[in-house]
Amino acid sequence: MSYVESRLDLNRRYRLGMVEAIWGEHKTCDQISAILTELQASGELAFVTRVGQQKAEKLLERFKSAVFHKESCCLTLGDPPNEISSLGEVVILSGGTSDLSVASEAELALKLHGVKTKLLLDVGVAGLHRLLSELKNLEKAKVLIACAGMEGALPTVLAGLASQPVIGVPISVGYGVSAKGRTALEGMLASCAPGLVVVNIDNGYGAAMAALRILRACF
Amino acid sequence: MSYVESRLDLNRRYRLGMVEAIWGEHKTCDQISAILTELQASGELAFVTRVGQQKAEKLLERFKSAVFHKESCCLTLGDPPNEISSLGEVVILSGGTSDLSVASEAELALKLHGVKTKLLLDVGVAGLHRLLSELKNLEKAKVLIACAGMEGALPTVLAGLASQPVIGVPISVGYGVSAKGRTALEGMLASCAPGLVVVNIDNGYGAAMAALRILRACF
Amino acid sequence: MSYVESRLDLNRRYRLGMVEAIWGEHKTCDQISAILTELQASGELAFVTRVGQQKAEKLLERFKSAVFHKESCCLTLGDPPNEISSLGEVVILSGGTSDLSVASEAELALKLHGVKTKLLLDVGVAGLHRLLSELKNLEKAKVLIACAGMEGALPTVLAGLASQPVIGVPISVGYGVSAKGRTALEGMLASCAPGLVVVNIDNGYGAAMAALRILRACF
Amino acid sequence: MSYVESRLDLNRRYRLGMVEAIWGEHKTCDQISAILTELQASGELAFVTRVGQQKAEKLLERFKSAVFHKESCCLTLGDPPNEISSLGEVVILSGGTSDLSVASEAELALKLHGVKTKLLLDVGVAGLHRLLSELKNLEKAKVLIACAGMEGALPTVLAGLASQPVIGVPISVGYGVSAKGRTALEGMLASCAPGLVVVNIDNGYGAAMAALRILRACF
Amino acid sequence: MSYVESRLDLNRRYRLGMVEAIWGEHKTCDQISAILTELQASGELAFVTRVGQQKAEKLLERFKSAVFHKESCCLTLGDPPNEISSLGEVVILSGGTSDLSVASEAELALKLHGVKTKLLLDVGVAGLHRLLSELKNLEKAKVLIACAGMEGALPTVLAGLASQPVIGVPISVGYGVSAKGRTALEGMLASCAPGLVVVNIDNGYGAAMAALRILRACF
Amino acid sequence: MSYVESRLDLNRRYRLGMVEAIWGEHKTCDQISAILTELQASGELAFVTRVGQQKAEKLLERFKSAVFHKESCCLTLGDPPNEISSLGEVVILSGGTSDLSVASEAELALKLHGVKTKLLLDVGVAGLHRLLSELKNLEKAKVLIACAGMEGALPTVLAGLASQPVIGVPISVGYGVSAKGRTALEGMLASCAPGLVVVNIDNGYGAAMAALRILRACF
Amino acid sequence: MSYVESRLDLNRRYRLGMVEAIWGEHKTCDQISAILTELQASGELAFVTRVGQQKAEKLLERFKSAVFHKESCCLTLGDPPNEISSLGEVVILSGGTSDLSVASEAELALKLHGVKTKLLLDVGVAGLHRLLSELKNLEKAKVLIACAGMEGALPTVLAGLASQPVIGVPISVGYGVSAKGRTALEGMLASCAPGLVVVNIDNGYGAAMAALRILRACF
Amino acid sequence: MSYVESRLDLNRRYRLGMVEAIWGEHKTCDQISAILTELQASGELAFVTRVGQQKAEKLLERFKSAVFHKESCCLTLGDPPNEISSLGEVVILSGGTSDLSVASEAELALKLHGVKTKLLLDVGVAGLHRLLSELKNLEKAKVLIACAGMEGALPTVLAGLASQPVIGVPISVGYGVSAKGRTALEGMLASCAPGLVVVNIDNGYGAAMAALRILRACF
Repeated sequence: MSYVESRLDLNRRYRLGMVEAIWGEHKTCDQISAILTELQASGELAFVTRVGQQKAEKLLERFKSAVFHKESCCLTLGDPPNEISSLGEVVILSGGTSDLSVASEAELALKLHGVKTKLLLDVGVAGLHRLLSELKNLEKAKVLIACAGMEGALPTVLAGLASQPVIGVPISVGYGVSAKGRTALEGMLASCAPGLVVVNIDNGYGAAMAALRILRACF
Repeated sequence: MSYVESRLDLNRRYRLGMVEAIWGEHKTCDQISAILTELQASGELAFVTRVGQQKAEKLLERFKSAVFHKESCCLTLGDPPNEISSLGEVVILSGGTSDLSVASEAELALKLHGVKTKLLLDVGVAGLHRLLSELKNLEKAKVLIACAGMEGALPTVLAGLASQPVIGVPISVGYGVSAKGRTALEGMLASCAPGLVVVNIDNGYGAAMAALRILRACF
Repeated sequence: MSYVESRLDLNRRYRLGMVEAIWGEHKTCDQISAILTELQASGELAFVTRVGQQKAEKLLERFKSAVFHKESCCLTLGDPPNEISSLGEVVILSGGTSDLSVASEAELALKLHGVKTKLLLDVGVAGLHRLLSELKNLEKAKVLIACAGMEGALPTVLAGLASQPVIGVPISVGYGVSAKGRTALEGMLASCAPGLVVVNIDNGYGAAMAALRILRACF
Repeated sequence: MSYVESRLDLNRRYRLGMVEAIWGEHKTCDQISAILTELQASGELAFVTRVGQQKAEKLLERFKSAVFHKESCCLTLGDPPNEISSLGEVVILSGGTSDLSVASEAELALKLHGVKTKLLLDVGVAGLHRLLSELKNLEKAKVLIACAGMEGALPTVLAGLASQPVIGVPISVGYGVSAKGRTALEGMLASCAPGLVVVNIDNGYGAAMAALRILRACF
Repeated sequence: MSYVESRLDLNRRYRLGMVEAIWGEHKTCDQISAILTELQASGELAFVTRVGQQKAEKLLERFKSAVFHKESCCLTLGDPPNEISSLGEVVILSGGTSDLSVASEAELALKLHGVKTKLLLDVGVAGLHRLLSELKNLEKAKVLIACAGMEGALPTVLAGLASQPVIGVPISVGYGVSAKGRTALEGMLASCAPGLVVVNIDNGYGAAMAALRILRACF
Repeated sequence: MSYVESRLDLNRRYRLGMVEAIWGEHKTCDQISAILTELQASGELAFVTRVGQQKAEKLLERFKSAVFHKESCCLTLGDPPNEISSLGEVVILSGGTSDLSVASEAELALKLHGVKTKLLLDVGVAGLHRLLSELKNLEKAKVLIACAGMEGALPTVLAGLASQPVIGVPISVGYGVSAKGRTALEGMLASCAPGLVVVNIDNGYGAAMAALRILRACF
Repeated sequence: MSYVESRLDLNRRYRLGMVEAIWGEHKTCDQISAILTELQASGELAFVTRVGQQKAEKLLERFKSAVFHKESCCLTLGDPPNEISSLGEVVILSGGTSDLSVASEAELALKLHGVKTKLLLDVGVAGLHRLLSELKNLEKAKVLIACAGMEGALPTVLAGLASQPVIGVPISVGYGVSAKGRTALEGMLASCAPGLVVVNIDNGYGAAMAALRILRACF
Repeated sequence: MSYVESRLDLNRRYRLGMVEAIWGEHKTCDQISAILTELQASGELAFVTRVGQQKAEKLLERFKSAVFHKESCCLTLGDPPNEISSLGEVVILSGGTSDLSVASEAELALKLHGVKTKLLLDVGVAGLHRLLSELKNLEKAKVLIACAGMEGALPTVLAGLASQPVIGVPISVGYGVSAKGRTALEGMLASCAPGLVVVNIDNGYGAAMAALRILRACF
């Protein structure tokens, strides 16, 4: 074929200080393998998101030292930092069990950059007492990431109660008008709580990188 | 012209027990006057919604005994019941001052049927304590009507805290993704709170009639 | 992993008087099993909605006393009330055979709370005589739940004929513009019938809980 | 300027047997005048739709023999046929007074082609008895045109009761989800009544021309 | 279970003179079988649309005399009229081979009512000469049904060339903006050709019943 | 105030060889004046689009040598090239008189770059013969720009008949589903004619610049 | 009237450390005056956004010490902090002159909290060199706020070049598909640049409060 | 069956000078085979797009000389031109590896017409240096085709840097708001770069044919 080689943005880690996520969903095993091989050769940590069980198994056969993270459907290859940075803690909250995979993607992405994290599940707003009883535990966090599907009200309520940066992550969980996460997304954008920011639906990695930018701005 | 006369559904009050609202927004002064004249002749109470200041003034000139209700942009002609029914109380909550006109339309519609009402403004979820401090006052209500624009989370939080029927009314207040009330509507429909029901955007009259149906079912 | 345990809202039954539905569609068998185990341990009745045949079979193997309700795709574990409450009857109407699963979900949800129900199928508005011939049977009902896909006109026609509370449930049955239930939903919200209320597309459980709130408000 | 003259499709009346409507809404007075002058010169009947009061007055000054039809916001210039054709009658039904202008546009368009028409207003489905009591009057019609805003259910109910061709015309009357006529349009397209056909929102002229095509096919 | 029997609208054939189509897509084999059994017992012709190959095979096992029409994905049971009516001919045009299944559904539906039909494929507007060379063949038709996916321009061009009733059927064929037929539908509704009418996306049966209504109005 | 000066992209003419259009619609008179002054000082030709009559008059008072182009709602300041380039001719076609303003914007933008143009109005597809009779006149054109509102089928039909580059410009003329030009845009994108390209709704300037890029690529 | 007083969330400044913005667009002069009076009485700084020229003039008459900020359409009453905090600088970039009002709202909101700001206009991505030549000036900023209408690509390009937190503000400037800011919003959410966060369309205040949360988290 | 034969537009190659692409996605193997047989008989080169692996294998069995192009999911039958034309080069750029299949479809379509091409992958705007370092290589190209999913900013940035015709191809790669390519499409249409033109989502063939029209206009 006539086309030039695909080129990884190996400079990004140095320029932005972030591991580039390889988005696995629309790539074939061969395409991912080619990228992993290249990253391995350059000694880079590889982080592939949205990898299904089946695709993961094929990749694990080819890359014996790769690790598949089942809850987050992510695959990593190479050594993450083995000590926790002093940048501060990020707490990741989620409205329901079904949001686990996105919340876990955010958590993993932060851990790969050495950030300390805590995950709080099932603190949805239809049973406010669950969230209210956790408020104490949020005080030490530098940044809050709030995942929610359905009507997506958790980040709004949270940003009215806490003064830290709050990053809303809409989740594509729901049915009818809430299918695919549109309603959660727009609910967060329309929020009457001041200073709530939002990322794309299911974008756990994006929320993590936003938190990382904030932590580093503080350093 | 060849067309037969427009016909008012004068039977509705007897069949459904409800005053039929004349929707004033897309009708000309002449069209509304014709309907008012007919209702006056038949001794019916007339209730016109969505009447702007200017249109109202013209109608008041023609119908000296009509009353314009400024907060709700409604006009009435004829005598409402002069005693409060024993059906029970409806509390109408709203997230912000800008929702006043729709909340007032609901209140007026209920009063025209002799229902006791209370209006609680500015109890939005971005400042939860305001709602929490009113919970006691909601206990005596038979039905709750919750108006909210922006992300529309008030009915969700309310329906998680109170066990009465909760009717959500999305309000067309907001900008960007919340303009025209779509986001509030879909947030209420997508709600994770069990048993929340919803009416059309800005439909204060509809919420009132739903509350009336409930009060009467109980009687 | 670092995350704290998921927490069921066990207080909800006491606070709102409702069995919390476990939404089964986006949860894995392992996630549902964990929740069922916890509910079983606390002596709670468990109610899982949107469970496919295959997922149900796996769960039935693990929980021998669970019951799978095929028409409604729901699974229950634990003992429902064995006597019918005196709250009054709810009639559930549907426009077509294809709406059966949602109508059945509403019926089952009410039965789990001891509410008396009746299901009337195939009373769509394209053949009005079928609905008109059932009007007598609706008179004793305290609340009407009307399910409809396609253009969703059944609740509108019904709310013009009957004076009880009418809860519209849009159904995701149809094709072209009616695919996924959007048109039915918006048709119900736009209804010219006064006091019709609406829940999310396919939300049989939600309609049932709204009916329950109404029945209890009447008590 | 370098552009060639605008060209009217004067052949259309001969090719399709229809008066071409000049769509007045987005045209300036000068543009409409130029077209009227050309049609007058060629002895054609001119039919301009969607002309506001103000624009009409300016045009009437320039064209003394033009007629402004206030209910339908249409302007005509030239002589319509002065006898009713034997093609048969078209009945135009509408759900509410607010639909009058579109229904009148359809009626006028038919009259300009010598077709006999009848207009039935306020036969909306929220008060079914009004429609049912008119069924007898529909029997002689060859074609039915049903205009409806809000949820747009009238054509569906009608097409389930009558066997003639039924043409649904969605009306841009309503608010919230029914604003601009989208919901009425989609409700008609999604209709469970067999053989209902639909035209664009507010397209009274189009419905009339469809009826004309049908009447002529029958001749 | 407590629900009353599903009821077929057996009166429809007598009231509207149309065979009621059983919409097969969202029904289980058991649900369709129950309906077929009932229709067979009452001596009615049964017509099931949108039946996949697999579902068809199961039904053919249970109903030996049923016929599966592969091009249109329809299944019939019972005897269609064995002579062609004198109502006149309907020509069905389509823009591309991919529209065949919907065009065939329309054709079959008309044949079941004894109507004479002709199918013209691949006369799309990107190669106008193909349509122009067929114009002669359209002259004898009483009604034209034009199916088109993509931008859906065929019915517009056709209705500008022919004076018969033209029924546009948008097809859910395409990709990107034309996926699911929305663009074709809206293009037909927005058409500048006077008197073009439209049915729901892929609704071949609906177009056929509209044609039947027209043919009968002419009789 | 603390903000730095706005900066015009004066390099663009040199880098891309195009006059930068100043988009006038959302700018105040003061903002436009500031830009015009700066361009005048640097000896650049200024081209402001989407300027209403009223705003134009105010600007003409301040800039005596400016010219307001009424049909296209554009304002220019400075000297356009006074000879026609040898790049070749661009023909601009439009479906209706209402599209004139956008077609004129495209024509003016080309003339400011010395390109020869021709404007053909009222060649819409509902009366095909008008377009077919002009085909000869299109042969000499290097590039075709086709403007269309409503269903937007003109560029599709044109690109099936002519082999030159065809640039479709959707126009925000229409009502109901065609209001604001969405349907025309999507119809052009969905076109079955190979190699048709599209610009934003009403973007006459953009179509002109695309034509200019093509003419120069040929040189 | 029966409703209880509107209640301002005076606790918010203490709880979240933010001045609550009064959203002026959908409030009447009387409603705004009532709120201003209350805030004045409690010694709070008042900040009203989206106040048009006319409404501002009326308010200035009633509140002599109020200040109207013309570029940002905001009105303030009371004394802002008179020294710049040591929290660090926020740079606000915008793609075009038309975005000025939103960018200015963000700047003013930050100044009211004592934050140092810089505004960089006209650094849109269609002329990349303008942005590239400013990169040096961004290095000292703690947080970047990037406003963009049209396709909204500025924040994406910026977040690929700079490692600070980047908050994208979509602007409702544009026409056709970019009208009302939807395309800019979705382009920012869909961004391939890691860690870009987004607020609602035109929400300059929200972006400012998000920046403030970040600055304080760092302190 | 009664329908006339499907007709291929064999004249198109002569009229427009383009190989007609057979769109394979919605056609059965039998339908494609019938078309291939007909083209083979007439000595035409056949080009089928959007053919999955499985469908391709079946077709290869029937047509031994056919070639399946895996990267582009296209199948060809017959001999392409065996020498490169002198029309000039087209460079195809793409933002990510996931866009490869559409970019390859464009490349193959051009090669089948003897056009010289170059493919540049992974030059997305989140890492601008990759694009900037390739600018030199673009200078010789006559036309640029830029493929991009997600926010689709590549063509905008490119059209601001290069003066050739730029054709944007939105790609249906992404998730959340960017799923299905809508956001990329609208971002390109809304672009602030002058003269950027766009084709349908994933329409590599269309972009290639547009480039071919341009190259030939230049010849």
